[in-house]
Amino acid sequence: MTALLNPTENLTHLGAALRTAFDGPYAAERARAREELPAEHLLRDPGLTMEQARAWTLSRLGELQESGFGAAGVPQSSGDAGDPLAAVMTFEALAYGDLSVTIKSGVQFGLFGGAVANLGTAWHHDTFLPQITSLRLLGCFAMTELGHGSDVASLETTITYLPDTDEFEVHSPTPAATKAYIGNAACHGTMAAVFGQLMVDGQGHGVHTVLVPIRNDDGRDLPGVTTGDQGHKGGLQGVDNGTIRFDHVRVKREMLLDRYGRVDADGRYSSPIESPNRRFFTMLGTLVRGRVCVSAGGLVAARRGLSIATRYALQRRQFPAAGRPGGVLLLDYLTHQRRLLPLVARAYALGFAQNELIQALVHVQGGGEHSDREQRELETRAAGLKAMSTWFANEALQASREACGGAGYLAENQLTGMRGDADVFATFEGDNTVLLQLVTKALVTDYRQLWGELDRAGVVQATAKQVGETVVEWTAAGVLMERLVANTRRRPDDLAMIDRAWQAWAFTERERHSLESLARRMRAAARSQGDRFEAFNRLGDHVQFVARAHLERVVLEAFVDGIAACQDPEARAVLEKLCSLYALSSIDADRGWFLEHNRISSTRSKALGEQLNLLCRELRPHALPLVEGMGVPEGWLGATLLEE
Amino acid sequence: MTALLNPTENLTHLGAALRTAFDGPYAAERARAREELPAEHLLRDPGLTMEQARAWTLSRLGELQESGFGAAGVPQSSGDAGDPLAAVMTFEALAYGDLSVTIKSGVQFGLFGGAVANLGTAWHHDTFLPQITSLRLLGCFAMTELGHGSDVASLETTITYLPDTDEFEVHSPTPAATKAYIGNAACHGTMAAVFGQLMVDGQGHGVHTVLVPIRNDDGRDLPGVTTGDQGHKGGLQGVDNGTIRFDHVRVKREMLLDRYGRVDADGRYSSPIESPNRRFFTMLGTLVRGRVCVSAGGLVAARRGLSIATRYALQRRQFPAAGRPGGVLLLDYLTHQRRLLPLVARAYALGFAQNELIQALVHVQGGGEHSDREQRELETRAAGLKAMSTWFANEALQASREACGGAGYLAENQLTGMRGDADVFATFEGDNTVLLQLVTKALVTDYRQLWGELDRAGVVQATAKQVGETVVEWTAAGVLMERLVANTRRRPDDLAMIDRAWQAWAFTERERHSLESLARRMRAAARSQGDRFEAFNRLGDHVQFVARAHLERVVLEAFVDGIAACQDPEARAVLEKLCSLYALSSIDADRGWFLEHNRISSTRSKALGEQLNLLCRELRPHALPLVEGMGVPEGWLGATLLEE
Repeated sequence: MTALLNPTENLTHLGAALRTAFDGPYAAERARAREELPAEHLLRDPGLTMEQARAWTLSRLGELQESGFGAAGVPQSSGDAGDPLAAVMTFEALAYGDLSVTIKSGVQFGLFGGAVANLGTAWHHDTFLPQITSLRLLGCFAMTELGHGSDVASLETTITYLPDTDEFEVHSPTPAATKAYIGNAACHGTMAAVFGQLMVDGQGHGVHTVLVPIRNDDGRDLPGVTTGDQGHKGGLQGVDNGTIRFDHVRVKREMLLDRYGRVDADGRYSSPIESPNRRFFTMLGTLVRGRVCVSAGGLVAARRGLSIATRYALQRRQFPAAGRPGGVLLLDYLTHQRRLLPLVARAYALGFAQNELIQALVHVQGGGEHSDREQRELETRAAGLKAMSTWFANEALQASREACGGAGYLAENQLTGMRGDADVFATFEGDNTVLLQLVTKALVTDYRQLWGELDRAGVVQATAKQVGETVVEWTAAGVLMERLVANTRRRPDDLAMIDRAWQAWAFTERERHSLESLARRMRAAARSQGDRFEAFNRLGDHVQFVARAHLERVVLEAFVDGIAACQDPEARAVLEKLCSLYALSSIDADRGWFLEHNRISSTRSKALGEQLNLLCRELRPHALPLVEGMGVPEGWLGATLLEE
Repeated sequence: MTALLNPTENLTHLGAALRTAFDGPYAAERARAREELPAEHLLRDPGLTMEQARAWTLSRLGELQESGFGAAGVPQSSGDAGDPLAAVMTFEALAYGDLSVTIKSGVQFGLFGGAVANLGTAWHHDTFLPQITSLRLLGCFAMTELGHGSDVASLETTITYLPDTDEFEVHSPTPAATKAYIGNAACHGTMAAVFGQLMVDGQGHGVHTVLVPIRNDDGRDLPGVTTGDQGHKGGLQGVDNGTIRFDHVRVKREMLLDRYGRVDADGRYSSPIESPNRRFFTMLGTLVRGRVCVSAGGLVAARRGLSIATRYALQRRQFPAAGRPGGVLLLDYLTHQRRLLPLVARAYALGFAQNELIQALVHVQGGGEHSDREQRELETRAAGLKAMSTWFANEALQASREACGGAGYLAENQLTGMRGDADVFATFEGDNTVLLQLVTKALVTDYRQLWGELDRAGVVQATAKQVGETVVEWTAAGVLMERLVANTRRRPDDLAMIDRAWQAWAFTERERHSLESLARRMRAAARSQGDRFEAFNRLGDHVQFVARAHLERVVLEAFVDGIAACQDPEARAVLEKLCSLYALSSIDADRGWFLEHNRISSTRSKALGEQLNLLCRELRPHALPLVEGMGVPEGWLGATLLEE
């Protein structure tokens, strides 16, 4: 793999303006990352064996750490509050390069370091953070078990307090309790943050986390610890995922990460959070940054793939045609435009939404004041956007691969490697299907609270319509969107399809109506006799639909806000079209729903396809600036096919 | 990788009956393959380096060849007609194991051997086929060039006759003329069937094929030949794909594969086919078997993936729920059923269509009488089904991977490896998007011929409706489907959604109407002034839709025929439901179209989702027999997660 240098880019005026708009509130941070990220060993040689890939990834981590692209944002001591923005920006920057490095960095600093920082207290911070941030102590985030992935509350590992010796005993009672898919566990980790059921004096206090040394410095398992190597995977060969099993392993009492639950020297358990349920979700809530980061990583990978495929389509010619004896440029084929440009539009849309997610994270975790509701909304938003972004990444990378034909299949063109790496993003840090369930659950909970209050007030029947609009006001919180929709309520079909007001109305209707009808069906299910599980289970596809409808609206809103913030008139005009391409593609994909619910006429629905074609044709001349705007320096793409 | 033995399977009664129905006309051949395929080294160790993988794949090829799973069906001499059925059955059987082996076998026997057998004459057959079928001569199928993938007619390589020495000179005039992505080119091939422009006495005769030795036995390039190694790919690491460039390389005149065009000792060109265009398509027509095989390979890979994911969903438990304290089986979640069971239904549907495709291939290539029309229909069908099957394979494998969560990402569970291997199926042996264009082009050509005849007869205006029905009769050729649709024309909405007559009507309407409207738009485009390319280019998405609509109808018809041939009443009843699940999933995916064109009411459209849920629930108890019916022996799945 040739060395790649930091880019000196010659962007078009429009490309530069789009990039400024797209980088949004973080334009300065992102520009700095593009300048300062050490790019000498950005991409990994696909010919490395797994062992070599792991060693390369580890050494690359050290190199990045020395350049300030490692533990940035992770606090160094008990007096340090950390910097969530720096952490997310660093993760995002690393995603320009090999994703094994990105994920291994995330395991070490984000998950392991994050567990110590967020779940531990001063002694843990001062004792371990300096070693973690300097890479002297490599660690594991040992949550998932072979038998328990999404269902963290059911973890079987036990953390039992032993009063006689003032120690905790960590134990895996069954094979299913074996920790699995744990990064750093197969080779490099010498300590693990182990999640398990805390037992004190015969009483269970739910899931807590304890630090357990697992390996000697010479790499051998410590007594009572059995690690396993999970070997080759669909990608991320540089990350050493493995299993850990504990056989009555003892650690000092101090090793419990005790911010949300501690055991004192007299063996008494206490917690600042009374409710075990709330305590559990508070602890899990600290994971939110991981989801924000994975979403960012997926989006960067998608932008890298789309940049390669679109640039290739701007240089590759296919069949000769009338007036084009040298062959037609791939991107001049309408079918090719329809394959790539809506994905570019969605990449922008999700990127704007990601910017808002980062802002919410910084608000909640930045050390200032924030409400419980804001924390909860951040968690819901992060879960949902992680699902949307990572599924999108896989779709965009696959489409990019196919759009490059046989060349796209060669490892030297980067697409299959990224596709293999990003694949697992759809199921780690929360399975996407389960995450969408969480999103809908949060929406329905809020909806029910509202409904319940109105119900108690005796106003439900009389003002059913108004209830609907109240819900919309909560769900469609953005001022711009609200104004757009408000202007449109009367006769939506009078508006042009490219009118943002009509699109906003359609997105809002899809969300509101599907949420209301789900809430109705859930109330009926709750009243039903018989198998309660089955009664709710039958709503499964409706639950997924509501989450998507909600998130699409959130994303459109972010796009609208992003355009409003754009100062350059030319960039703004292109973004307006791109936003329509995103919005109408989303409506087109669900046009069955819009027709069924009489939210769109047959005539308008039939015209959608032509409108999408037209938008693609109008955006086609701006394809290069649009790629530049996505922010991946051309020199970092590392795809041989662009050199021909 | 542990050795896998040939299976002694203990199928359920229903599973065995489903398998018999699904294997259809080839039940005996397939059962024999399951017994006789040497299964000791079925799957490849994912830890092998690329070099090791290539060596393993080659040695595995020899082992299979000795057991009769190599050159089966390829003729051995000029007196041997070959056996297309044996060739396809062998390819299909190999797809139960490592797909690099399958594809390398396809390169050697199907493509290289096929070129010699189909494009050569007696001397080539007697001289080379014995060496090819015994693996003493490994060869390349050197068609694709760096600059020319789908556009074979534009190949730049020249094959120039030199009268002075009675030789051909093979030359790559530009870097873009370099042969690329060629299997066996990087290492193992010593000869290539090279496609290029035949030039005789300054006159071009279009694309022909010549055999060119490229390497010594010690592996070094011959003078004038430069091979290159394309290295790591997204999968198929055991296949040594590479580049070949020719610098004025000379071969004897006899080396031209001269069945469709020869040069005699006096330097005169002659061909049994007058029209250069027809000659070109006749030569390409011999490729049809490759597409039939790739379709088969994709379908087997999809069935392996779905078998793993469905069996896992029958043993893995997730969250506890009311009445299910041990956790809910994954396959009891409706969302999980909706992810997997429609794919299983589609796997059956495409499998039945594949059986019919093989029958058509055997009819055309089996040595008996066949018409030009049958040859053309076979080519269209093979192109279309290859596209549908391979896209489906990627979709099914990805869904299977995600349905197994983190475990699905481990190489030991086979899914990511198959996914990486099958990825390229979507773009090799014809890019899928281009193949669908071919399908529609064939349909529109036939339609126009018919229309033109009626037009000349002056009956078009008067019997427009009848024209429509005539088209349907041609496109929906199956007797069963015809009868179904005929019974239904009057009031389709009176029929239940699970009534096959309604489904057949809907599929036929989708095909007929979209084809007719495309033909209309094409006539308008042909009349339009201005940029003719753009006029047709704008129909690109409509062209793709028509091909899909046509193929979906073909597939449904095959499913209906398959059920009609099933003798077991219990299996038949399950297949009826499965067919409805396939058909309604297809309608559901296009319900926007059906609503827009007033072919379905809003009420019915809204009810589709519930009907799909119901079918999934009804099929859920038969999940294991359905997996057994797909025909992949459990012992060959090789997925560690099923052993837990």
